[in-house]
Amino acid sequence: MDYIKKYVEENKERFLEELFGLIRIPSISSLSQNKPDMVKAAEYWVKTLLDAGADKAKVMPTEGNPIVYGEKIIDPKLPTVLVYGHYDVMPIDPIELWKSSPFEPEIRDGKIWGRGANDDKGQSFIHAKAFELMVKTNTLPCNVKFMIEGEEEIGSSNLTKWCSVHKDMLKADVILVSDTSMLGIDVPSITTGLRGLAYMEVEVTGPNQDLHSGLFGGAVANPINVLAKMIGSIHDENNHITIPGFYDDVLVVSDAERADMAKAPFDLEQYKKALDINEIHGEKGYSTIERTGIRPTCDVNGIWGGYTAEGSKTVLPSKAFAKISMRLVPNQDHKKIAKLFQDYFQSIAPKSVKVKVVAHHGGQAYVAPTDTAGYKAASQALVDVFGKKPIPFHSGGSIPIISTFENTLGIKSILLGFGLESDAIHSPNENFTVEIFYKGIEVVPRFFKHFTEYSKK
Amino acid sequence: MDYIKKYVEENKERFLEELFGLIRIPSISSLSQNKPDMVKAAEYWVKTLLDAGADKAKVMPTEGNPIVYGEKIIDPKLPTVLVYGHYDVMPIDPIELWKSSPFEPEIRDGKIWGRGANDDKGQSFIHAKAFELMVKTNTLPCNVKFMIEGEEEIGSSNLTKWCSVHKDMLKADVILVSDTSMLGIDVPSITTGLRGLAYMEVEVTGPNQDLHSGLFGGAVANPINVLAKMIGSIHDENNHITIPGFYDDVLVVSDAERADMAKAPFDLEQYKKALDINEIHGEKGYSTIERTGIRPTCDVNGIWGGYTAEGSKTVLPSKAFAKISMRLVPNQDHKKIAKLFQDYFQSIAPKSVKVKVVAHHGGQAYVAPTDTAGYKAASQALVDVFGKKPIPFHSGGSIPIISTFENTLGIKSILLGFGLESDAIHSPNENFTVEIFYKGIEVVPRFFKHFTEYSKK
Repeated sequence: MDYIKKYVEENKERFLEELFGLIRIPSISSLSQNKPDMVKAAEYWVKTLLDAGADKAKVMPTEGNPIVYGEKIIDPKLPTVLVYGHYDVMPIDPIELWKSSPFEPEIRDGKIWGRGANDDKGQSFIHAKAFELMVKTNTLPCNVKFMIEGEEEIGSSNLTKWCSVHKDMLKADVILVSDTSMLGIDVPSITTGLRGLAYMEVEVTGPNQDLHSGLFGGAVANPINVLAKMIGSIHDENNHITIPGFYDDVLVVSDAERADMAKAPFDLEQYKKALDINEIHGEKGYSTIERTGIRPTCDVNGIWGGYTAEGSKTVLPSKAFAKISMRLVPNQDHKKIAKLFQDYFQSIAPKSVKVKVVAHHGGQAYVAPTDTAGYKAASQALVDVFGKKPIPFHSGGSIPIISTFENTLGIKSILLGFGLESDAIHSPNENFTVEIFYKGIEVVPRFFKHFTEYSKK
Repeated sequence: MDYIKKYVEENKERFLEELFGLIRIPSISSLSQNKPDMVKAAEYWVKTLLDAGADKAKVMPTEGNPIVYGEKIIDPKLPTVLVYGHYDVMPIDPIELWKSSPFEPEIRDGKIWGRGANDDKGQSFIHAKAFELMVKTNTLPCNVKFMIEGEEEIGSSNLTKWCSVHKDMLKADVILVSDTSMLGIDVPSITTGLRGLAYMEVEVTGPNQDLHSGLFGGAVANPINVLAKMIGSIHDENNHITIPGFYDDVLVVSDAERADMAKAPFDLEQYKKALDINEIHGEKGYSTIERTGIRPTCDVNGIWGGYTAEGSKTVLPSKAFAKISMRLVPNQDHKKIAKLFQDYFQSIAPKSVKVKVVAHHGGQAYVAPTDTAGYKAASQALVDVFGKKPIPFHSGGSIPIISTFENTLGIKSILLGFGLESDAIHSPNENFTVEIFYKGIEVVPRFFKHFTEYSKK
């Protein structure tokens, strides 16, 4: 399949330039001030798909950010691949830690640096350019559809409704998603498990106004002290989560599967060195890979209250806040867990404060089977390009929409990830390896070819 | 003493205007950007003292913010009153909660609203205008000296050195300070106890960069979770502080004195209603007045880390921070307590994080005797104006410099406070009752008169 390598080689500079154009649009979905950028990013995708050769492509409004839909149907009797991706990105703070401006992408050390370089602009753009390659070289072997949304980082709440409304339009044999990671730059991998998510926000109110900590301290509940104690009580001395009922539905992974997981390449010393930590920290009785792959967690994502500027202020604040999220594993229901969390926080709050707990977005965990045409096609495409068989693995991350696709559309997804753990997605200095970007564009046409073949059998 | 009432009546509008001029200068000592305002506020004081009739008044530089010194010596053989105050103020955040701009003072509901309206611009200005009154009416009965500093809210660290250098210049028989509260608008009070302070800042570092909470959550220590657990461990189930050695030096107050304290006017229902809380919250075995007056505390004044903006971000942050201060009681040494806190926090930190604990400012607690000429003069002056005997009481606040004055200059202080608990000092909507401002200007000349008489005996 030399035409693939050739096309990539001849167009590689333009591919990068076009990806940069997308990254330059600051489409941060969690900030309302960036609303106009969401539309710009969607329109950029429509143009990209039409230029690549789509029969049609359009920006479809929702109650939130618009969804891009595009398709090229060459023969209704052939299989259809539905590509999913998202054009929205995470916020950029703390901005001062970025070495280059997050929305002015640049190449350094063989990597693309910028917000969305990997997640998910870089990864999803692989599919746009692979599609273009297949059209321009007359090698598209089956039908293709695209749905690119703008709310993945905030829970995909409008995509679910949109999918049920447009079920017919979205008919396909497999959903292809690149929004996960490889285990290493030369370790091709397919994600076969994703964690679910329940994201909560807690507000603790003590007195109705900020008070002088001398005149009132010791006599009035301090909402920060109270919130800290409540958060501290979530984990016991073994780092088990203490919320009653939290583990009730957790799928117990068999010893055999745990033994398999232990075979994945993992270097603890390298892991600690990369993060500059003296010790890892997690649930007793589980390895690092298990802690992120098959066990649920509870992490504070943000906390704030009182005086946080330079110097000192002796204030007993009125309020304290925290954003707390739980990663869930198969069988845990995110709505049930959110309720358990709410009940627990209300039950442990002292009467001297008022506690408000709101559920932000959530999503279910996902497990992908490995005996499907989709998995086998992805596996063979990776062998073609990387020269070795990919490792199936459980990722610690969450793409809540994947389980929704299965429930709403009845279609399984293939998680063909091209990220690396060092890509700093969601963090300052997000990056994406240029070489992998190009390799991805080589893998995808092969996936289409193998999938079309395997589907015929 | 009708001339006092008359002078106040004839000049009351101007007094207010001149105080407003001082409040308009945003002299926030904890923010380096406000440095130039510190000098402006000091110069405003110099002009005020010279206009009032001081022999001399000047801005004296220190390594930090300048100190204002002024004096009028009418006869070296007569007693000398040294007035202390501070022109620096607290930060103004959260700014959105102010009903009027903090540095544009205005009168509403019989109160002056603005940062520093009470603490300490309003209270210290009482002395400036009372001094003017005595000079202009030819009734100044003794010598007077002023020292007005600009670092009270950040620990008065340069005043201590300045006092030892200028010991001779500062020679006096009593230090008069208005920087505390009355127990009610018609309950004149003299503060006979102040708490000490140890103010700490804690930084917890987990991984060397913000991480994706899905990919790493559960396997790497989350510095916010860790910090919360550490803060949560400071108080046990009885709200006793668990830091080893914390209570070792605490002065045990006698049952007789506790019985006396219980006689102070206090309405628990009113207290809860004013703060809109369902329950008070504090150390088991002590009343609210005792919890703020004679018992030490540990309050978080500020906490921050991770994502704190709108919406959600699934980040496992690299760092978490807290500002934590302890109010201390007589016999507790703030340096020893700061060390105990540092040792405790290092000892409970898990190996998976790095913890840095820095001591901000601190100060010792203070107890004032009630059998001195100064106390008696203050008491009689309050009787003259309010028609009732003042109540001596222990305040929960800290003015660390008061015990330093005693140690460095060998002079006792009289804490003649004119604030009210509802004045919201250190908070949004700080205010000061106009009527009390004028009453204060009537009280002070009487204090000078009585003090001069009692000192002769």
